[in-house]
Amino acid sequence: MSWIVATYRIRAPRAQLDDVARALALEQSVELPEAAVTDAYVREHVMGRVAAITPGAGDVHTVAIQLATATTGYDVAQTLNMLFGNSALHSHVELADVEFPPDFLARFTGPRFGIDGLRTRLGAARRPLACAALKPQGLSSAALAALCHDLASNGVDVVKDDHGLADQAYAPFAERVHACQRAVEHASRATGRACLYAPSLVGAPRALAEQVRITRDAGVGAVLVAPALVGMPAFHELVERQPGMPVIAHPALGGAARIAPPLLIGKLFRWLGADAVIFPNFGGRFAYDEATCASIAGNARAPWGTYRPAMPVPAGGLTVERVAELVAFYGPDVMLLIGGSLLAAPDRAVRTRAFVAAIERATDAARPAHATPA
Amino acid sequence: MSWIVATYRIRAPRAQLDDVARALALEQSVELPEAAVTDAYVREHVMGRVAAITPGAGDVHTVAIQLATATTGYDVAQTLNMLFGNSALHSHVELADVEFPPDFLARFTGPRFGIDGLRTRLGAARRPLACAALKPQGLSSAALAALCHDLASNGVDVVKDDHGLADQAYAPFAERVHACQRAVEHASRATGRACLYAPSLVGAPRALAEQVRITRDAGVGAVLVAPALVGMPAFHELVERQPGMPVIAHPALGGAARIAPPLLIGKLFRWLGADAVIFPNFGGRFAYDEATCASIAGNARAPWGTYRPAMPVPAGGLTVERVAELVAFYGPDVMLLIGGSLLAAPDRAVRTRAFVAAIERATDAARPAHATPA
Repeated sequence: MSWIVATYRIRAPRAQLDDVARALALEQSVELPEAAVTDAYVREHVMGRVAAITPGAGDVHTVAIQLATATTGYDVAQTLNMLFGNSALHSHVELADVEFPPDFLARFTGPRFGIDGLRTRLGAARRPLACAALKPQGLSSAALAALCHDLASNGVDVVKDDHGLADQAYAPFAERVHACQRAVEHASRATGRACLYAPSLVGAPRALAEQVRITRDAGVGAVLVAPALVGMPAFHELVERQPGMPVIAHPALGGAARIAPPLLIGKLFRWLGADAVIFPNFGGRFAYDEATCASIAGNARAPWGTYRPAMPVPAGGLTVERVAELVAFYGPDVMLLIGGSLLAAPDRAVRTRAFVAAIERATDAARPAHATPA
Repeated sequence: MSWIVATYRIRAPRAQLDDVARALALEQSVELPEAAVTDAYVREHVMGRVAAITPGAGDVHTVAIQLATATTGYDVAQTLNMLFGNSALHSHVELADVEFPPDFLARFTGPRFGIDGLRTRLGAARRPLACAALKPQGLSSAALAALCHDLASNGVDVVKDDHGLADQAYAPFAERVHACQRAVEHASRATGRACLYAPSLVGAPRALAEQVRITRDAGVGAVLVAPALVGMPAFHELVERQPGMPVIAHPALGGAARIAPPLLIGKLFRWLGADAVIFPNFGGRFAYDEATCASIAGNARAPWGTYRPAMPVPAGGLTVERVAELVAFYGPDVMLLIGGSLLAAPDRAVRTRAFVAAIERATDAARPAHATPA
């Protein structure tokens, strides 16, 4: 039998830490006082165990718990349940990290395309990638397609829907996706440069399946999905059914969780099969710091069993002026996503070309240790 | 056109509050600086608006934002996106409450059975209901069925699976559900008293659909589902497809959200169609206080358009000794869930009968204002 090791950060007085850790191991497994667990099989093979306690300097400590792999049934929803079901209701507990054993990992494929798959589709072997967003919602499909065409014509690699674009009356999904995809293809033919349009898929499972069908029919190059919005099990089912194109994960609603962002975005989203993961960059309009962003990117790209690396996509208030700094920070295996500051610029085309040029200039300056030749 | 009013609690210096509120209205709608929103339709019909700012005594204030109903496309995932997609990534923002306009509410049916439907199925018109849990996971289907039989024989109204029971090798879903349902039916015939067995459904959408089929074939009386584990859109799709039995919502993973519990558990789970909502009771092993629990129960039962009231189910470390106190607190429209303390008792049957007797005694003492005759 094998065990998953889940690591939690716990706020508790040092004197109570051992008890709190034992209670956590029980809460996340048998959900009974240890004395009430009388069955020998359950005690040996199912009951959670405290693997390590690492006291912190103050009142926040780190506790590692062993959870029996068999309890997950190798199901995504049930795995989340085992990792953090009831403990999510405890405000003193944060889920910090998890190590899955090989037999568990082997049941999940991870990213289908990953960094190399994205690079191959874009014909961009080494340099960072440029990503822009279509917004605001409320524009017609034709207006969004025109914007798409502008961004693609000026050299952006990936044009993604704002995650707020759904199946709304003012730009119905099928109409918008076909119009934007045609715009990108038209621009690509003119520039001779590949560009992927990534529509945002959002909805209940049946709606998602229909949206996958539409994107496939339209021949789009990638899709954007927020695992926390559609539900992580539904996200994984979508990846498993294979839309035939890279899947970019958006963090919407995910930050609400008391799950450490490097784990949720860098590791769990990759486990579920995201080929690229968008996250709030430091110094922008979100509160993640440099260390958190480095850990998210690190987890997305680190060697992990047979899983392909996922492309880190920092975003949120990025500007062209920060491209060199951010490529130096993340290395060349990165896709920078600039949204509002391109669209708000009086001369959008000039700003877009400046973005693309900055990306290309930054390549040589990038830290070679992070390079992943395609 | 109509607007949803979302209320947020925001931590910010008073002097910056107006700016922070405006930024929130933009983030949750157009995701662009206001100056970049040049389209007249978008400005008028799509861009979010600050409806009210209520400064607090300290650094936490309340801000109400109007979000255009049309932005939701009447889809669950997209509605969550509009309410809290990106702002979930802002650690200074909590989603506190939401008011949906009538045209929005009319698109969703809410609970199919609700409090009255549960009461009718149990033949219990006025009194509080007694609920117990099957655990620990790791027991065989036969052992769980025996436990189920004991609890039902001693008068419990609803026997629910521990939410940790899934489709695991040691008690496969179909085998367990059939065995437990037969046990409950057997006990009911002997006592002449109705008892509902509620298996826990957990999994990705396809697995859920299969589990619904199995529970329906087995003729079970209710099901338990955790919306945050399976994903709220998948939860709603399950309710929409109508398993033909009451759906009890479990809060697992939901407490991790920076969404106020009275909103998430009392209101949103009911909106999605939960007939009963389990939540951590005050004074137990979870951290919710009395006011939070009263608000959850209040939201679950309050008049709300055409929606049926949902049954509040306080749980988590409850004991038989607290039955009278809790019925006095919640009133008779409540189902009390006692898990571990029944199962850990040396004489389980005696404790179970004491629980049921306490429930029946508490009825007369219950506050009549909360009574809902079936």
